[in-house]
Amino acid sequence: MPNKKILIVGGVAAGTKAAAKCRREDPNAEITVVTKDQNVSYAGCGLPYYIGGAIQDRAQLLARTVDELTATLEINIHVNHEAVSCDTAKKTVRVVNLADKSETEMPYDALVIATGAAPIPPRGKGAELGNIFTLRDLSDTDAIKALVVGGVKNAVIVGGGYIGLEMAEAMHANGAKTTVVELMDHILPNFDGIIALLAQKHLREKGVEVITGEKVVEFKGDSGVVAAVVTDKGKEIPADIVVWSVGVRPCLKFAKTCGVKIGVTGAIEVNKKMQTSVPDIYAAGDCAQSVNILTGKPAWIPLGSTANKMGRVAALNICGIEKEFPGVLASSIVKIFNLNAASTGLSVAEANEAGFDAESVILAGNDISPYYPGAKMILLKLVADRKTHRVLGASLIGAGVVDKPVNILVSCITLGATLEQISDMDFAYAPPFSTAMDMVITGANVLLNKMRGHIGWTNCIDVKKRIEAGEKIQILDCRKPEMFDDGHPAGAINIPWGQLYKRAGELNKDGKVAFSCKIGQSCYSAILILQARGHDNLELCEGGIAVYPYEVEKKQVEIARE
Amino acid sequence: MPNKKILIVGGVAAGTKAAAKCRREDPNAEITVVTKDQNVSYAGCGLPYYIGGAIQDRAQLLARTVDELTATLEINIHVNHEAVSCDTAKKTVRVVNLADKSETEMPYDALVIATGAAPIPPRGKGAELGNIFTLRDLSDTDAIKALVVGGVKNAVIVGGGYIGLEMAEAMHANGAKTTVVELMDHILPNFDGIIALLAQKHLREKGVEVITGEKVVEFKGDSGVVAAVVTDKGKEIPADIVVWSVGVRPCLKFAKTCGVKIGVTGAIEVNKKMQTSVPDIYAAGDCAQSVNILTGKPAWIPLGSTANKMGRVAALNICGIEKEFPGVLASSIVKIFNLNAASTGLSVAEANEAGFDAESVILAGNDISPYYPGAKMILLKLVADRKTHRVLGASLIGAGVVDKPVNILVSCITLGATLEQISDMDFAYAPPFSTAMDMVITGANVLLNKMRGHIGWTNCIDVKKRIEAGEKIQILDCRKPEMFDDGHPAGAINIPWGQLYKRAGELNKDGKVAFSCKIGQSCYSAILILQARGHDNLELCEGGIAVYPYEVEKKQVEIARE
Repeated sequence: MPNKKILIVGGVAAGTKAAAKCRREDPNAEITVVTKDQNVSYAGCGLPYYIGGAIQDRAQLLARTVDELTATLEINIHVNHEAVSCDTAKKTVRVVNLADKSETEMPYDALVIATGAAPIPPRGKGAELGNIFTLRDLSDTDAIKALVVGGVKNAVIVGGGYIGLEMAEAMHANGAKTTVVELMDHILPNFDGIIALLAQKHLREKGVEVITGEKVVEFKGDSGVVAAVVTDKGKEIPADIVVWSVGVRPCLKFAKTCGVKIGVTGAIEVNKKMQTSVPDIYAAGDCAQSVNILTGKPAWIPLGSTANKMGRVAALNICGIEKEFPGVLASSIVKIFNLNAASTGLSVAEANEAGFDAESVILAGNDISPYYPGAKMILLKLVADRKTHRVLGASLIGAGVVDKPVNILVSCITLGATLEQISDMDFAYAPPFSTAMDMVITGANVLLNKMRGHIGWTNCIDVKKRIEAGEKIQILDCRKPEMFDDGHPAGAINIPWGQLYKRAGELNKDGKVAFSCKIGQSCYSAILILQARGHDNLELCEGGIAVYPYEVEKKQVEIARE
Repeated sequence: MPNKKILIVGGVAAGTKAAAKCRREDPNAEITVVTKDQNVSYAGCGLPYYIGGAIQDRAQLLARTVDELTATLEINIHVNHEAVSCDTAKKTVRVVNLADKSETEMPYDALVIATGAAPIPPRGKGAELGNIFTLRDLSDTDAIKALVVGGVKNAVIVGGGYIGLEMAEAMHANGAKTTVVELMDHILPNFDGIIALLAQKHLREKGVEVITGEKVVEFKGDSGVVAAVVTDKGKEIPADIVVWSVGVRPCLKFAKTCGVKIGVTGAIEVNKKMQTSVPDIYAAGDCAQSVNILTGKPAWIPLGSTANKMGRVAALNICGIEKEFPGVLASSIVKIFNLNAASTGLSVAEANEAGFDAESVILAGNDISPYYPGAKMILLKLVADRKTHRVLGASLIGAGVVDKPVNILVSCITLGATLEQISDMDFAYAPPFSTAMDMVITGANVLLNKMRGHIGWTNCIDVKKRIEAGEKIQILDCRKPEMFDDGHPAGAINIPWGQLYKRAGELNKDGKVAFSCKIGQSCYSAILILQARGHDNLELCEGGIAVYPYEVEKKQVEIARE
């Protein structure tokens, strides 16, 4: 039997992964990679960090060079070559050398489309001006880097997704006054609202302007380069540089010449073996559609991690080893200055739409033992199904470690864990690494408590909305007076913990009392005790003051004047 | 119905947790805690870090004070009181006030034994000398701290378990020349051998002497205090201070007066509701026996994390809410200077003994994206069952993050995950937090590759043993020449990657060739390619040079002399 010809179009994550895995599974195969780029296997997710300066050495962005891949894996790599069309009957691909425009016809036994995704291009009046960028590859990166190194006064980032926020931080690190403009009512549109509000608060504290609910509709120029952006509400923001990061779209130009079916998400439809609708043609990576494990519905979540897994699964099936890719949870994680934010699975709304009966809870706590140096706060919002107690989703934010709990929860969600199962997991514990009861365990326990419904639950966003709507709610902050004075929700009264039972007469008799403390833990016990004594109007403010995303009120301290 | 009387003997982790949870579940109960100690709820796991100086403020070690617990949870706490006996027919406990020796008879409807565990006391000639310590509570801590702050030249730690190693680091931090003496053939006896060897190497690099396979049998004194320890092999080691940390035993003095059944592990036998053999008597924490989730056999793994969970389960059942504690995986984690080491589940030997058909693999990699600042190496040894591909155990060590992967694997093991399931998990990925293919995923993939058995697998310990036994093995290091010159396994030859296929004629024809590279990844592809070309004597050295725990050989560089 002649050696199998495997042709891969695209050479970043999915493409090179598929090539390497095919080599390992079939040492005799003829493996060819064709890519429009100058490079293969570059670190697409690392580009903002190089622009911001966290990564100093550009060479670090090239995971593997063409020479390395060629020498070690015996793969034929054609950079600066574009696959322009496919003859699926003859099983050949027409490839153009972009340097000399010469054409080749490359045969395949198996073809992998790994053409990735590209940023949605800037739109609006003046979008053709200079210094308006999108970020996809090393050439975009080099152009942006050159400009910011030269000195940029005002940067505008259009789009507050994670690439937008990473670029905002990179611009700020280069000394630019930076503004993020987000169309939706909060940044991180795929994240939970409270997480996003806390991220916005942090960005503003760091000096990054955040504008939400506005759309950039026009670019004003000066000598052919951008000078300002204008929003649909008429706001004009000075900008020497604009990074347009409103999202990406799958690159389907080549795929369409293959006649492969496009899915409802707009990406290439594949089955779990990464096979397209056309025999012997596979798709993998950011151009391919996936499925949400929890809802069973098509999902398109372009990410380097998923691209690698898809590339591997395609390679295994091409080489005769049956393997299915089960799908994604839409997990994501982002560093925003000193905060880390992560998300996986479904929100309450998404879960209910998918037929679950979802409940959630917010809690705050330490990432490691509070007495060990370096302990930092994290906030966890956990979502589970009321009927089965199966955990369905999680969002986290904080200065502390969030990648660990989110990934523990990724495995729990994937494997169908219930809150009860999580509650007893034997996580490795020592003070430098975690608390004795890990945050994930406490989250499961608190959500189970909430589901029992024996007390009322609320949260600071909900309380604010209800008070604004005219509801009579007394906010009780039961921390120590010095903590209260240092910052508390507007209008709150303070009865410290130790005096609570004696001073219970001061609590509102009519209307509700929203109980708050540092992280919401202590009030739980207090409410249970007071409830047993006849107070039936108490509500626990989930997560306590730790998750309060608004401006706090401070005690007016009189300063003696000389 | 009169209020339920809940009596808890012991006030550290399990005791205070049970008390607090009982209060929350039954706001009207009369809850009493009796403890011999001066304090409740202190951070037992934090003591070595306070002695070493990482934790500066002693007050940090007291999680909650008696006053706080009393005021907020309305619990009666009697410190410095000893529960001396129990009348299970009358349901009363006799309690002695250790200050004035007065006695009280305390009634109970439910009794929780949470008396914990205590260190095995020093044995051997001269064990009664001064400055020989065990570490259990704050008074031990204060005595050790006072001594080391005054200045200690030579410290000997007897026992190389995790408390021993934490104390070795604490002694070293105080400027003492520190020696660890371990009876078994490696420190961290519950950890995998290669992990332990790497830990030993690191300790020695940091200046801590490690002696294994020797037993301390005698203490020599000077003016009533210890001056040296003597081992069974006649080694005499100077010691101004000795910390005896060979393990702990459950504290059963009070439990025995209750007539509760003691289990095969020597701890109190309980069912999954934490009920002892005597009605209305529960046990929780370090004095109580558990079960290994994977083997179903009794296990006694005294740890603060488990104690908290057990205390909570006991409280729920006492308050009429049925809840079972499923057991433990024997997860543990320890910081050893700049290394982190963790372990969970079963080793290959333990798994096979429990009826599994276990296989393992060792691999090395980065904790976060290698191009992002701060990326560090970690080593993972993963154990799974050949028949079901179910993951059974994991050990990790490295300068990088190990608490995240070990706890992901804890959830995977608890939930019965297969390697295939882990392989596709949608872990949250961004360069500051992880690699695109998380180490846990790569581990699952590599172990699946190994189980397919299409190439030979070995590791550096195995190769060393076989060469010492006379087997003819060529060690091939295929890294770049400069990396090879900087340190390679003794006797290795170097053919760099890029030249491998051309120079394949230099490989041994008879005997085996053990292939090694930086982390063992590149050789996998190389072996597959060479095997397809007729080389059938190749073995992959798992984990590569990264896991080599012995002294490396360096290239003799000739230095020009003037």
